[in-house]
Amino acid sequence: MSAPLKVAVLGASGRMGAEAVKAVGAANDMELVATLGRGDSLEILLETGATHVVDLSVPASTEANVRFAVEHGIHAVVGTTGWDDAKRESLTALLSKNPESGVLIAPNFALGSVLASAFAATAARYFESVEIIELHHPNKVDAPSGTAVRTAELIAAERAAAGVAPSPDATETQLDGARGALVDGVHVHSVRLRGLVAHQEVLLGGEGEQLTLRHDSYDRASFMPGVLLGLRTVASRPGLTYGLDGYLELGR
Amino acid sequence: MSAPLKVAVLGASGRMGAEAVKAVGAANDMELVATLGRGDSLEILLETGATHVVDLSVPASTEANVRFAVEHGIHAVVGTTGWDDAKRESLTALLSKNPESGVLIAPNFALGSVLASAFAATAARYFESVEIIELHHPNKVDAPSGTAVRTAELIAAERAAAGVAPSPDATETQLDGARGALVDGVHVHSVRLRGLVAHQEVLLGGEGEQLTLRHDSYDRASFMPGVLLGLRTVASRPGLTYGLDGYLELGR
Amino acid sequence: MSAPLKVAVLGASGRMGAEAVKAVGAANDMELVATLGRGDSLEILLETGATHVVDLSVPASTEANVRFAVEHGIHAVVGTTGWDDAKRESLTALLSKNPESGVLIAPNFALGSVLASAFAATAARYFESVEIIELHHPNKVDAPSGTAVRTAELIAAERAAAGVAPSPDATETQLDGARGALVDGVHVHSVRLRGLVAHQEVLLGGEGEQLTLRHDSYDRASFMPGVLLGLRTVASRPGLTYGLDGYLELGR
Amino acid sequence: MSAPLKVAVLGASGRMGAEAVKAVGAANDMELVATLGRGDSLEILLETGATHVVDLSVPASTEANVRFAVEHGIHAVVGTTGWDDAKRESLTALLSKNPESGVLIAPNFALGSVLASAFAATAARYFESVEIIELHHPNKVDAPSGTAVRTAELIAAERAAAGVAPSPDATETQLDGARGALVDGVHVHSVRLRGLVAHQEVLLGGEGEQLTLRHDSYDRASFMPGVLLGLRTVASRPGLTYGLDGYLELGR
Repeated sequence: MSAPLKVAVLGASGRMGAEAVKAVGAANDMELVATLGRGDSLEILLETGATHVVDLSVPASTEANVRFAVEHGIHAVVGTTGWDDAKRESLTALLSKNPESGVLIAPNFALGSVLASAFAATAARYFESVEIIELHHPNKVDAPSGTAVRTAELIAAERAAAGVAPSPDATETQLDGARGALVDGVHVHSVRLRGLVAHQEVLLGGEGEQLTLRHDSYDRASFMPGVLLGLRTVASRPGLTYGLDGYLELGR
Repeated sequence: MSAPLKVAVLGASGRMGAEAVKAVGAANDMELVATLGRGDSLEILLETGATHVVDLSVPASTEANVRFAVEHGIHAVVGTTGWDDAKRESLTALLSKNPESGVLIAPNFALGSVLASAFAATAARYFESVEIIELHHPNKVDAPSGTAVRTAELIAAERAAAGVAPSPDATETQLDGARGALVDGVHVHSVRLRGLVAHQEVLLGGEGEQLTLRHDSYDRASFMPGVLLGLRTVASRPGLTYGLDGYLELGR
Repeated sequence: MSAPLKVAVLGASGRMGAEAVKAVGAANDMELVATLGRGDSLEILLETGATHVVDLSVPASTEANVRFAVEHGIHAVVGTTGWDDAKRESLTALLSKNPESGVLIAPNFALGSVLASAFAATAARYFESVEIIELHHPNKVDAPSGTAVRTAELIAAERAAAGVAPSPDATETQLDGARGALVDGVHVHSVRLRGLVAHQEVLLGGEGEQLTLRHDSYDRASFMPGVLLGLRTVASRPGLTYGLDGYLELGR
Repeated sequence: MSAPLKVAVLGASGRMGAEAVKAVGAANDMELVATLGRGDSLEILLETGATHVVDLSVPASTEANVRFAVEHGIHAVVGTTGWDDAKRESLTALLSKNPESGVLIAPNFALGSVLASAFAATAARYFESVEIIELHHPNKVDAPSGTAVRTAELIAAERAAAGVAPSPDATETQLDGARGALVDGVHVHSVRLRGLVAHQEVLLGGEGEQLTLRHDSYDRASFMPGVLLGLRTVASRPGLTYGLDGYLELGR
């Protein structure tokens, strides 16, 4: 067995950060060498000999954190939001000067959700009909969910590329809203129900058959296997990878 | 074992009628004594000694068929549409003069669907949240389905009677239609997918739990157990019963 | 609006007790007047003027707690286990001398679970086939779950009473265990999966249709609406009621 | 638009064959040039100028049919069973002498089923727990279904290759059969219910999340999109392809 990864968690006092501290601490092949919160100096990374960082801090500090890591040969797995195109381009430029460093920026670390989106996009080429139902707790303020919108966009792009016709729909009369929202031509339905957390179903239908891809997220603990997978993989993938699906073996 | 019921099927050449002919013919406790189509004389019912009729004819003839049956002491199970309030009142008046005759008029003979609606109404008093998803083949021209609208109305009436607050919903921004159609305050979502037939889910949510009532209808054969149940019960229920749920033992 | 119920929680330091303290404290129509743990004197109930108790203590003390309540005209809602036939008979005798006191003993307070079991039993009379799938976290040591066994027994009893034939099954060759466990003639399948909590599906099938009754339990908070319903109802139901379904309006 | 494919259907009088005749006849990019049944001469393929055949005949004739096609430069899509290793090796040898001919032999043409199996295998590497539930009509004589057994084998192979531990299971006491059948270490549950056709769910669970892949097959019409996809692809894939998944773009 090889030496454990020396991992530091940035943003360790946030809710996701605290989960990461627990998960890294419990992993046999990792050693938690540092936990940094707001105001802590990044020099601690050098003093503790960290070879990997997990950045779960805030948009205001994530860019500086990651650039520091890259400049010091530390691999980075990043869950913080705020990485727009400009910031990613600038990071790519920096990585080209540090060709052995790897960075993973992932908007979503839930393996099941990432897999479900990828499978939905793959399957959408092969079915006449596709619709999305997302279900969340009733305190959510936006509808549809961001994940559902992204899944619909991904599906629409695959269908356009494969020349698939729009899903058939003979609806002539409807009550307002019955057929859901349209995202790039894909119908999306948003259910809000007390007791739920975050759930999504992609329904695909063809003559005589149906394929349903459902993901249920019950707890933010569900992000940790993806974070650990990222840490175990990032050193072998120099440069910038955007999206955890880049690390998954999706084909066969 | 008692003597078999002597059953005649009216509207026997229609699709539902043909199913009823098969189902009655296959029932051990029934004897199919006549099948009548358009233009056949109702006198055949008397000649064959029918004690029960199933009327699956057309709106234009169902009233005359049923009145003839009642006047001749024949019990009737009716699936034909078109029985508005006026016709039902007139039939009730006729039945009061023929107090031993029973008539069942049922807009829906699928036991599972009737049970699911009844259960949904019962449960809706006890949960904070309730929404409906109905799923059909893409050739359907209206949305939501009539069954979904009736289920929502039933649910809304029960919640109003029990003083239940509206389902919580913090949605502030939404894409048009994302949250579905509103029927008496109940959110209803209509999915259209190739390969499906007719399906409905009622989702009920409370703190920490969810109850889901789903009905799948694959084939019009699903109406026949309800028709047979109607035939076996109608003689013991003089007067007019509207809705198959009137014959089901729903409590305990 | 009437005066709030004066509620004391017994067993307040246990996990369920702590939930009850929160739930009663948050209910507009209740006042939490006392919380008792191990060793606390029941005299506190009298000093604080409690009119209702929730007993979520331990089997060793629940009988003394409830008898004290009944003898002092305090209504009791009881979730503690251990009430065998002998103890319930003895309690019924005591209640006959205190005819205004009400006691509810409920093995299960999750409304959705109680409703799902009742609906399953009702529906089981009307379908050819019925099977149960229960799904739990992988740390559960017994299979099937107690709830699944009780649901199967309830279903079997209803089918026997209604003269329904056993579910059809043409299986000739099977791998050991493929068709699940048999409980009173009902097939029961137990799934164990990381990430799950406690879930159950009753599947009912007839010619051309299917009815599915699913309950998901995510959190012990799901028991609290049932506890509150018990508290609000118990004073109007003198004597002993066993099972929360006794307080639900299941028919229409 | 290119010229239509000239397609002949072999085994055209069987149930699957009849579906293929309809499907090819309805496809805009295909011309149905011949339909052959038992006893018809394969010379008809040459006379009609067929460039593609669909073989849905019987095990006794499929090998001769396909060899004739290959020898005459006709591409073949084959759904007939009976192609054991020896026959496939012999066919591969023949194809090496006819390097422009393509043959697809597919044990399953339902796109949804093929995709669901492939997705299940892919996802099984990333989740702690995986189980399979298959649901069929009650006239089925074997349990589990062949598809469920193959899916379990595929999943087990992927998990072994990726070094994934067995699914956790703390069961100590169980009723016989409750935990299902074990296929290569994967628990498989078989439900038999009147009204169903053929359905399968693969449930994958990890800390705080669940991924469910469900396929419903309602009708043998569901095989036709796979047959048409095979016909459209086979000419561009010289040699023997075994399994429709070989023609699907499963990765991204």
